[in-house]
Parts: sequence; C-alpha cells; structure tokens
Amino acid sequence: MAQAKNVLIVGGVAGGMSAATRLRRLDETAKITVLEKGPYISYANCGIPYNLGGVIEKESALHLQTVPKIKAWFNVDVHVNTELLRIDRGNNTATVRDNKTGIESTLPYDKLILAMGAEAFVPPIKGVHSKHVFHLQTIPDLQQIEAFIVSNNVRRAAVLGGGFIGLEAAENLRKRGLEVSLFEYGPHVFPLVDGDIAERLDTGLVRNGIDLALNARVLEITDSSIVAEGRDPTPVDLVIVAVGIRARSAIAKEAGLAVGQKGVTVNESMQTSDPDIYAVGDMVETQHLVTGTAVQTALAGPANRQGRLAADHIAGRAVQYRGNVGTAVCQVFDQTVGLVGLSTDNLKRAGIEHEYVTVHPPQHASWYPGGTPMTMKVAFEVSSGKILGAQIVGGEGVDKRIDVLATAMRGGLTIEDLEHLELGYAPPYGAAKDAINMVGFVGGNVLRGDVKIVHAAEFADGSLNLKDYQVVDVRSPEEFARGHVKGAVNIPIGGLRERMAELSQDKKILTYCYVGYRGYLAYRVLVQNGFDVVNLDGGFKAVSEGGYKSLQA
Amino acid sequence: MAQAKNVLIVGGVAGGMSAATRLRRLDETAKITVLEKGPYISYANCGIPYNLGGVIEKESALHLQTVPKIKAWFNVDVHVNTELLRIDRGNNTATVRDNKTGIESTLPYDKLILAMGAEAFVPPIKGVHSKHVFHLQTIPDLQQIEAFIVSNNVRRAAVLGGGFIGLEAAENLRKRGLEVSLFEYGPHVFPLVDGDIAERLDTGLVRNGIDLALNARVLEITDSSIVAEGRDPTPVDLVIVAVGIRARSAIAKEAGLAVGQKGVTVNESMQTSDPDIYAVGDMVETQHLVTGTAVQTALAGPANRQGRLAADHIAGRAVQYRGNVGTAVCQVFDQTVGLVGLSTDNLKRAGIEHEYVTVHPPQHASWYPGGTPMTMKVAFEVSSGKILGAQIVGGEGVDKRIDVLATAMRGGLTIEDLEHLELGYAPPYGAAKDAINMVGFVGGNVLRGDVKIVHAAEFADGSLNLKDYQVVDVRSPEEFARGHVKGAVNIPIGGLRERMAELSQDKKILTYCYVGYRGYLAYRVLVQNGFDVVNLDGGFKAVSEGGYKSLQA
Repeated sequence: MAQAKNVLIVGGVAGGMSAATRLRRLDETAKITVLEKGPYISYANCGIPYNLGGVIEKESALHLQTVPKIKAWFNVDVHVNTELLRIDRGNNTATVRDNKTGIESTLPYDKLILAMGAEAFVPPIKGVHSKHVFHLQTIPDLQQIEAFIVSNNVRRAAVLGGGFIGLEAAENLRKRGLEVSLFEYGPHVFPLVDGDIAERLDTGLVRNGIDLALNARVLEITDSSIVAEGRDPTPVDLVIVAVGIRARSAIAKEAGLAVGQKGVTVNESMQTSDPDIYAVGDMVETQHLVTGTAVQTALAGPANRQGRLAADHIAGRAVQYRGNVGTAVCQVFDQTVGLVGLSTDNLKRAGIEHEYVTVHPPQHASWYPGGTPMTMKVAFEVSSGKILGAQIVGGEGVDKRIDVLATAMRGGLTIEDLEHLELGYAPPYGAAKDAINMVGFVGGNVLRGDVKIVHAAEFADGSLNLKDYQVVDVRSPEEFARGHVKGAVNIPIGGLRERMAELSQDKKILTYCYVGYRGYLAYRVLVQNGFDVVNLDGGFKAVSEGGYKSLQA
Repeated sequence: MAQAKNVLIVGGVAGGMSAATRLRRLDETAKITVLEKGPYISYANCGIPYNLGGVIEKESALHLQTVPKIKAWFNVDVHVNTELLRIDRGNNTATVRDNKTGIESTLPYDKLILAMGAEAFVPPIKGVHSKHVFHLQTIPDLQQIEAFIVSNNVRRAAVLGGGFIGLEAAENLRKRGLEVSLFEYGPHVFPLVDGDIAERLDTGLVRNGIDLALNARVLEITDSSIVAEGRDPTPVDLVIVAVGIRARSAIAKEAGLAVGQKGVTVNESMQTSDPDIYAVGDMVETQHLVTGTAVQTALAGPANRQGRLAADHIAGRAVQYRGNVGTAVCQVFDQTVGLVGLSTDNLKRAGIEHEYVTVHPPQHASWYPGGTPMTMKVAFEVSSGKILGAQIVGGEGVDKRIDVLATAMRGGLTIEDLEHLELGYAPPYGAAKDAINMVGFVGGNVLRGDVKIVHAAEFADGSLNLKDYQVVDVRSPEEFARGHVKGAVNIPIGGLRERMAELSQDKKILTYCYVGYRGYLAYRVLVQNGFDVVNLDGGFKAVSEGGYKSLQA
C-alpha cells in the first residue's frame, strides 16, 4: 500500500466537505483535515434567506453536519474559525491562523484543496460600511441581521441588487412583514434572462408589495435612507447589499497560481496550475458549454460535484469535469423563473447566431384545475437545431421544464427532437402535448421553414418597422378590443379564407393572435394562397406581458 | 399543383383530429373529412374520471373543439355519429353508417387514416352486462354513470381493475363521497411497476379509505354485490369495469391489413400494410425502445404525434415515428407514481440483463418545508450503464424526475451521466445534489465497482439467503429498535472503525442503514479493511415500505 496521503482542505461547506467525505470513502488511510474560516461547517447557505423570512422556522434546520459527527463517520478532522493566510508551494505547506486565539501555524500537505468560496462584492457607495448595512451570505450574516431587526424594531428594509440573493432576500423580508424596497442597477431584475422575461418578475414584485426601483443608481446609504439618482430618498432601517460576488482568489494569486478573470484557473481534474493544489466551487472559473468561455458558477450543485471530482483525482482516478450549462431556477413570490444555457440577449452579446421561439403553454392540461400559463423562450442554432438556451417564467412546472431542457442539452437533442419526447402525462402533471413538445413543434416548424417568424424585440429595437407590414390580428373582435398591435386590422381566423381579398398582395403580412397558434394557422392559409407572410412569435401576449408598450394600441 | 387529395379520417379525438388539423396546415387544397362514431369530437378523455369526481366541475370543460369551429378554422368536415363499417381496398372506398338515420353510404378516399382507438375489454364475468355496470372511457360513459349515480342515489361503488383508469375512477368516486371497493386481479395495483413500488400505492389507497381487494378473482356481479373468491360478497350499487383495453382492429383485419398481437401493424410513417391506409393511436402497435418488441401505447401523447406524422407523410414529407419508451405517470390520492422504460420485473420477463439501484431522496432540499421522500428504482445495463427503466413513487416532484429520465433515455445518457446533470436548484424545487444526481452517484458507484449491492427482492424470492450473511445494521440504536432486518447486529456507523474486531472475517457481511448511505459508508470502511461486504440496496426502507415482511424482525 502506498504511504498515506496528507490532504488539507480549505473550506468546510459544499465543495470542501464533498471533497473530504468522498476522499474518505475512497481512501481509509489518508489524513484528511478541513479548515473552515467561519464558526460553522456544512450548512445550507441556500436556505439562509428562507430562515430570515420564517419559511424555514429554525436556524438549526440549516446546520447539516457537526464537527464531531464528521469525525465519527468519516474520520475527518475539522477545524473551524481557522483561516488560510498563505500557501508555500515550494515546501508544500499552508500557513493558517486560529481566529479565536490568533495563533498561526504551518501545516504540511501532499495535496491541497481550495474551496474558499466567493465574497460579497462591496459596491463603492457612500455609507456602505454603516452598521445597518449587511450582506446575506453566511450564518453569521443571518444571525447579525436577525439580531439587528429584533433589537432595532426594523420596519423598513432596502435590498440592493436584483439577482438570486437580492430577490430571495426581498421576498423573505416582505414575508416577515417589513416594507421592502429593491434597488436594481439594470432595467430589470434577474439579468441572467432577457428583459421581456424579467419584465414579468418586475411586475410580480410590485404586485406583491415590493417598492421596486429599476435603473437605480444608488448614491448614498445614510443612517435612515437610501439616496438614489432621480428619486426621493427612501427611508430604511436596514440595508442588504447583494450586488454580486467575487471569487476568493487572492491567496491563490499570491501563491502564483493561475487566476482568470472570473476565478482560479483549473483543468478538467479540478487541478490548479500547481498539480498538488486543487480548487473547487465558487472560487474557480469553468468552461461554459454553450460559449466555451470562462464562467463563475456560484451554485451548490457544481461545487459539490467539483469537490467530489477533486477527491476522485487525488484517489488516483481519471475524472473529467464537464463544464457548466448554467442551469438556474429562482422563486419570486408566486412566480418561478428558470434558465439553462444562454438568454437571447447573452447569445447576441456572445456573437452566437441563433433563432428562438416563444410559447405560452400551461404547465398541465388547460382544462384541469389550476392550469397556469408559462412563458418559454428557447433558442437554437439555425443550421442544426441544437438548443442553445431556454428561459421560462411562470408558476408551477417551470422547474420541471428547465430540468428537461438541461437534460436535453446534455444529451445533444435538437429543438426538433423535443417534438418527439415522450413525457409523463396525466392531467395533474402535464398535457398530451406537453409544454416541451410545444416548444419542439413551434421550433421544428421554424427550422423546417413551415413558418417564418419575427419577434416583438425586433420591432422594439428598430431592426424591423411595423409600418413595413400589413398587420393582421386573427383573434376575435372581443380580444382585439382589449388591446392589439399598432395599426393592426382584425380578421378572425374563422373568416380568413373568405376575407383574403381584403389583404394587399404588395405588402408583407404580419399575422398574430394571442399566443401564436392562430397566427400560425393564418400564416399557413395565407402562404399557400400566395401571400408573403411572417407570424409574430409568441403573439400579442409576448408584446403585452413582455413590456413592449410602444407596439401596442 | 397536383390534384387535391381526398383524405378520409376515421376517429375524431386525439390522433384523428391531430392528423386532420396538421394536414390542413400543410395542404390548403386537400379535401379532409373526419368521421366520428360517437356524438363528440376532440374531447379530453383523460379528464373524464376527474369530472366524475368533481375535480373538474363541468363536463363542458372537457369539450375542446366543436364541429363548426373545426370547419371555420380548418375547413375540415366532421361527421359525428358516423361509423366505419368496412373498407374496400380494391376501390379505395369506405362504407360508413350514420347511426342517427341508419343510412349507409360509400365514401371514396385517396388516403385513409384510421384513428379508431381501443375498446374496453369486457371480462367473462357473470353479470358484467347488467345495467349498473359501466366502462369509463367516453363522454357518453361519463354521462350514463353520472345519471345513474344521481337517479339511483348510489352510495357504494366497485371498480374492477387497478390500472390507470381504475385508480383514477376509484379515487374520484371516493372524492365525491362514495364508498369504494377496488378489485385487482394481481397482487398489487398498477402492474406496470414492480410490486415493491406498487406496495406503497396499495397502502395509500387503504389509507385513503378505499376497500382494496388484491389477488381478487371476481366470480359474479349480482344486482347488489360483487362476489369474489374467498371474500364475503361486497354490496355495491354501481360497478366500473376497467380491466384493460383492446385495439379496435377488427375492421382493419377484415380488410386484410396486417394486424399484430397488440394492434394494427404500421411502419415508421404510420402506414399500414396498405400504403394508402394509415393507422394511429390506441389501435396500433409500435416498437418499444428498450425491448424492441411490439407494444400498444394507449396514451394521448403518442396518438397526437402519430396523427401529426401520418399527416406529414400524406403531405409528402419523410417522417419517422421513433417508437415508445413507455413514459407514464399517475396520481393516486396524495401519491404520484411514474414509470419510464421497463420495471425490473418486466426486464426480467424480457430476459434483459440489468442491475438497478434504489434511492429515497426528497423532492427538494430536506431542510426546506414540505420535503417528502420519493422512492426511485432505476435499472441500467451493466456493460454500458445505459438506462433501461425507472420507477418512482412519492409526492411532489415525481413527474419531474420521470420526465428528466425519459429525456435522458432519449438522449442516450448513462446512469453515470446522471451524476453530472446540472439541474435547476433553489430550495423550493430541488437539492444541490438533486434526486437525479443521487441516482447517478449510487448507480455510478455500482457501475464502477465502488460498492457491491444486493436487493431485498433477492432475499424474498430465495435467490439469496440472509443466513449466509453477517448482517450489520449501522443505524442508531433508536432506529434499530423500531425494526430491523432479521438477524442483524447493530453497530452504528460512528463507532464502526473501533468495533470491526466484532465482525467475523469468514462470513460475507451485509451492511445496511435506513436509505442506503450509511450502509455504503460502512461498506467502504469494511472493504478497505479486508472484509467481504455487500450493501443492501435502498436500505431498511426498501424492506419495510416495499412489503418484504419476511425479512423483518
């Protein structure tokens, strides 16, 4: 038997603990030591906002393991309150400090796994270091906020940042009865998705009583207010700053390890540029499967898998981290938003040619109680049909479709393949033509040339002009009267074949209905009668719910 | 332009109407006629049990299209109450009868699409034709049952058959307040899945107040009771017979079309043995993707897709029906059961070599409120890891995992690939290690030889004997005291390394815990210390909830 390895792991939450426990399962003889800077290990940091809101009643529910249990089950030594100061790669040692005693010591290692996470970005805003300003990342953060709320009888809170943590913080503070203002620098919350998808979240936040400030440049945090450009000061007792995170890569950099723009550079075995040093989790950058570029994926799932792979590799196994496809899902009050791959905005930014389709199917049979529509935007490569990204917003069933699409992308399925997917159908769960099949039908139609589509976004950004089209709304007169596309004439689908003479043969026709189906039927009727037609992707619903006000009459 | 085609479609529900509307979208000139034997078209037959139970309040919700609307939107002529009597292939004509007038007529066709469905099997039981005995397949069935219940003040109902319709009927009759007895011929309801999975459904039915008779040979239906072998007569006012369906293939057979054991034979373009005649839906047999054998898939999803493909092919397109993987999901009160591919019982019957793993993950983070465990059995090919089938029973989230696994099977993913799937994680929806990842971890461990497992089923069927093992329960003493495997000793995982001397080196050791994880940890400790070990797949929970009473002490 080879000599027992001495493995030092820095970080005792997702990635670090996954590495430690996996390595023990593979190697009973290794000496495994975990150092955790904070006072707690293996806690559910994703649950922190929900404990703040009372959804998870007790903080104790977030503590998944204890130091003695890790020792008993895994024979792993864990030292909390112990911080890595520097790495001496020449001597394979790490210098650490016990933050309770201040005592520094130098520990040798054969292999070192860095799982140090990321730290909250502190924006350069006056007052950001005030005592009523917090991050919401760790259990101590949570404890401090909880104590502050109680002892100061906090009634009004502000959240800076509309990403995952910001949204979860805003919702949970609201759920515990506070007045909540949410400040987002961009035009919409949740910038991972397109603006017309995020528009629904914006609306939902306001509907649920959040004071939402978009395009908000916060100038100052005073003791009792938030001062943002062009807005009256917002009185607040508490501020949570959640404007992004930065990989904790300084010590790795000082040690001369390769560090990229997003985090520590690792190979597919999770090794840094020093083969004795591994890095995993929020502190590393990995390859995005769609763009091939470096991304930081600060999520617990990838961190766990990376920790496991690092352990496998140390145990002598060939491993391959497969990159990230960026699957994400987030609850925002009664809505769920999800993403896999890239949004169309991000595809455009990355210069990746693509087409996309927008559909609005219900999560289960529309005639079964509780059927609520989702909005799905799915992008694909025109040459191959390869799926490049999907965004979904809705209620129930969003998470299911995101997971199916993430799996389809991993399996290399095309958008046409989605037509044929045989998904579980019973009325409470889906539809005979599942939402995923609908994406396949519509996307397949586009791919095969059965329909030509244009997007509301193209009119909104000026790349197309409504004036160049004869706009035909094929819905009922009642639907038309409730709102329609500027300049549209109303010819209900049922009478279209009889009324084709009313249409000009000279101008291109833009058909649309509410969600896209009748518009597509009209397209097929008109094209086969010699007209030059395009259908509006996602119909009037994509216009009205997507926030394209300038296109509406 | 070619001469307009004359297309006749027999059947006006899922497959037939999908074919009609798709064909119109592709071909404005075709003459398209749909004949429907019953009085209604395009109704949601999957919703029928739910209307009976009041979950869907109004029957009108089940009617999705009307004859005039189909004419206006699609220019398709629909004739209801019109039945196909025979096909004259030599002359390309069909003889039909208007069941209201009795008038027969002969219609020519260029292409004929048969979408005639299946009919309820009538078991040879005395009294099965009594006036209080019904099927539950069509809207008229529903109307008759509804009228019978109301006018006879029905209090006690019996359902014969524990498949999809039987389960949905039993649940819905119970929900409207009736006393319900369910008679199933086999040892468990829902015979598509293994007995230990169905065991949970049996238990759930009883818990929800169903009088469940398993292994029930019904001898007679009297005017006021069900007489079954070895059981006191069960008083009933109403009987629903749901013991299977048979493809409606008689007319196709009389016309000389090839008909297999399960239904009409079709090629991948949905053509029968006569290229001018297509058949789709419940009346055809298609190829099962796992077994390669002929199956009848009586589900709305495949019927719709087949109808669409038949239309595509008639419109001159190359199409390929891709076979069925048998995805199914069913709600049974507070439980959901789902299946894709084959159960392990059916894999065994088909002679397909396989291994399987049993895991019990919650549908979302266990520390988030409402986390409820599922039981997942996933089978795979040992040589390749190819997924052969998955069965899941639980509450929320079962349908999602079935769909992910169905997609994974279509994408050719292996059980090891499931480790790496990047699924949407936020606490309300999943876990950092999603249930699907857990299947991948456990299955991957088996595939790589990191753990050797045995199954409760192997002890129950006598292929293994508990007496050949030193059985080690590594749970806590409290858990052990609540019930354990016969002959087990209790050595909690935390103290195992210190107590290994208590174990014999001569006998094979069987480790287990509650769900499998601690048993696996124990396996890894002991194997690395030179013991010969196997771990019990799915742990004690697989034994106790799977109904393996003989293994318990």
